[in-house]
Amino acid sequence: MNTTKFTELFTVSTNTGANASPETEACELASHMGETVRLHGSIYKIRRMSGFAFVLLRMRDAIIQCVYSNEYASFPLDALTEEACVRLVAEVAAEERARAGYELRLKDVQILSTPSEILPIVINQKQVNTSLENLLDYRPITLRNEKERAIFRIQAAICTAFREFLNGEHFTEIHSPKIAAIGAEGGANIFKLPYFDKEAYLAQSPQFYKQMMVGVFERVYEIAPVFRAEKHDTSRHLNEYTSVDFEMGYIESFEEIMAMENRMLRHCILFLEENCTAELSLLNCALPEIREIPQIPFAAAKEWIASACRREITDMLDFEPEEERLLCELVAKETGSEFIFVTHYPSAKRPFYAMDNPQNSEETLSFDLLFRGLEITTGGQRIHSYKEQLAKLRVRGMHEELFESYLMLHKYAVPPHGGLGLGLERFTAQLLGFENVRSATLFPRDIHRLMP
Amino acid sequence: MNTTKFTELFTVSTNTGANASPETEACELASHMGETVRLHGSIYKIRRMSGFAFVLLRMRDAIIQCVYSNEYASFPLDALTEEACVRLVAEVAAEERARAGYELRLKDVQILSTPSEILPIVINQKQVNTSLENLLDYRPITLRNEKERAIFRIQAAICTAFREFLNGEHFTEIHSPKIAAIGAEGGANIFKLPYFDKEAYLAQSPQFYKQMMVGVFERVYEIAPVFRAEKHDTSRHLNEYTSVDFEMGYIESFEEIMAMENRMLRHCILFLEENCTAELSLLNCALPEIREIPQIPFAAAKEWIASACRREITDMLDFEPEEERLLCELVAKETGSEFIFVTHYPSAKRPFYAMDNPQNSEETLSFDLLFRGLEITTGGQRIHSYKEQLAKLRVRGMHEELFESYLMLHKYAVPPHGGLGLGLERFTAQLLGFENVRSATLFPRDIHRLMP
Repeated sequence: MNTTKFTELFTVSTNTGANASPETEACELASHMGETVRLHGSIYKIRRMSGFAFVLLRMRDAIIQCVYSNEYASFPLDALTEEACVRLVAEVAAEERARAGYELRLKDVQILSTPSEILPIVINQKQVNTSLENLLDYRPITLRNEKERAIFRIQAAICTAFREFLNGEHFTEIHSPKIAAIGAEGGANIFKLPYFDKEAYLAQSPQFYKQMMVGVFERVYEIAPVFRAEKHDTSRHLNEYTSVDFEMGYIESFEEIMAMENRMLRHCILFLEENCTAELSLLNCALPEIREIPQIPFAAAKEWIASACRREITDMLDFEPEEERLLCELVAKETGSEFIFVTHYPSAKRPFYAMDNPQNSEETLSFDLLFRGLEITTGGQRIHSYKEQLAKLRVRGMHEELFESYLMLHKYAVPPHGGLGLGLERFTAQLLGFENVRSATLFPRDIHRLMP
Repeated sequence: MNTTKFTELFTVSTNTGANASPETEACELASHMGETVRLHGSIYKIRRMSGFAFVLLRMRDAIIQCVYSNEYASFPLDALTEEACVRLVAEVAAEERARAGYELRLKDVQILSTPSEILPIVINQKQVNTSLENLLDYRPITLRNEKERAIFRIQAAICTAFREFLNGEHFTEIHSPKIAAIGAEGGANIFKLPYFDKEAYLAQSPQFYKQMMVGVFERVYEIAPVFRAEKHDTSRHLNEYTSVDFEMGYIESFEEIMAMENRMLRHCILFLEENCTAELSLLNCALPEIREIPQIPFAAAKEWIASACRREITDMLDFEPEEERLLCELVAKETGSEFIFVTHYPSAKRPFYAMDNPQNSEETLSFDLLFRGLEITTGGQRIHSYKEQLAKLRVRGMHEELFESYLMLHKYAVPPHGGLGLGLERFTAQLLGFENVRSATLFPRDIHRLMP
């Protein structure tokens, strides 16, 4: 065979995505009044009335009501089953009584796939009425519920908003490794794994890497999974979650990090207002108003809660979950803010890279952000001096030789810097008023759950 | 203490990021002619001349040349050391001989941090002249080199471009778990880890989850790490990489997926042209022109290479790396395209979820995209019928009970669909003409490397 023959084998596809689907989107229907359109989607629900039926079609961006009647349709109603995937031909007919001002009269159908069994769980009611366990066990189908999927459309929009904001503030996106030789956050909650002939760990955070990258790009961010071998089986903990991390150099105060987060959250809320109206209304979500977020030092907050709520302080180094809840209530009452920055956490409870307060080495230049009763962000200024970082490692009895490449950052000079990590699922859950973070996690991982 | 007292503890920070830094960006300098500006950055290089010195400042977005002379400066030149982080006061003075049309005369400096030791490797030449090993061992500092960091600025732009395109095409971003009870891609190259009292695996791809989500959102994407326990120590393999995955429903042919990728890549190239001019020129990168990408069936490509290059075919089921290289050469010569879609890979070499060609069950409705000699994408249509998927699992002797939640997808109906995964680091490496994918990986993981 010669080469010329082979070149005949080349083809250039004319089946481009753009031309192959002259099908109408849900949002375009109103502009096709009086026309016959093609649609595709899943049959969400069939409501048989006398002499006709309502057929709800789950489309990509909305659930659309169609009308089935022998009068228009060229196929029997029995051809349709709930959850079947179909292409439809329908007429957009003006109809005053319909909320949208038109009704979609089904004319023809092409069945693309049908369920092999009846669904084990009802998903086409306003919400899926079942336990959280069941909801998660049947995730591949329960997510098809209108409200369930709205949660994750909002979560996607949150990420888009964060990236839009951070790109605009000249942060550069990075991709740091999730398998590492050492853990960044210390403690026992770290997953180990055999890595060829070595032992490795799953990243608890991108901490080391984002700090290294401050020396390169000044401002960096990453939205990626992190792993915590938490044995706590609570409504707030996940063993894998999506962490929104940013880190910024040339700061003069750790308060600049808080100010940046404040503006990022404000941008996000505005973005959701503009882009997720339908989803927010479906979930009855009242977006918080964010102006200036008040801040209070940790020690003062502790005392305030104790005094205002007549509680004994049992742990001087950290909040109990109940205290976070109470603090948010007090703050909301006093200031109207649903967010509160708690600052200056005790050094003993913060990692070895946290910068101590020069005025009081018992506390750090750090903060948490609490939102509607729950911590959603931890951040602070980091040590940038090589000497200081070495000293803190030694005081803590850590093996500095393990941190050789991390310490290059300090040894070869890095500007004063700091940053934060925000839990995407926790933020989503608090925004939507969920009691369990799992409700805002696509496929949660906890001590009991590895599937689906 | 009463509550009123505590409310006095609230403060609202006035130290917002926006106001705290009235410092000039590199790109704004020209508009401050004749003015005195404040800048910050790292001292990249000091070039002593007779009577004055050039001081290169590494700023966030560019490397800027300043002039030091006793005439203007209020500090001694010795106050500056390479890699020190500084704030500078400088005058933007018109100067015809300077390429930018002005020179920056240093007036004052504030030293924020200085290196504790001399750098073990020279990073301020046009490029870092050292082995790849050294380059990677010293990543926290070698990335500070102008060219090195340009690579990852381009990589960040690639991601932004991909997301912009996919969002515009109504894809929804998802976050799927990286710890799972089963592997999606089969084979031995999977990392295992103890997960409490169970055994778990690191995701080789988000395959199962993106397919599940087609039933929910029709079109989804994810840009996230995947893990492959590859024992091959080659220039093309990484044990962790960033996978750009998308999956789309309601397709009529697997060629629609290729058409979507074609348009995504075109969008990306245009985006880079507009947003990364400086970085591309620094790296001498000639962006490929992408029009229609030609396609050729796998079997025909095999024969063509054998015939045109007088090679024996030793593996009928897959390409050898050398064959991918040769094929790209042939295609470029015949068509001018640096990209080639190879279609219809043998079923035996494709995973259990790949849809076989109804005309020939020995081959699949799948494709790879080769770019400049290397496979950068694998994709194809997936089985959507429950019966077919069950049958293929059984033929392969797989345990269907392990796939119970995955199979819900098929059991309760999913539209015809398919998608792809593109290796971000490989694409970046090929775009920039690198021989080793590690050169385009921020902190690579391979069989020998877990640090930094």
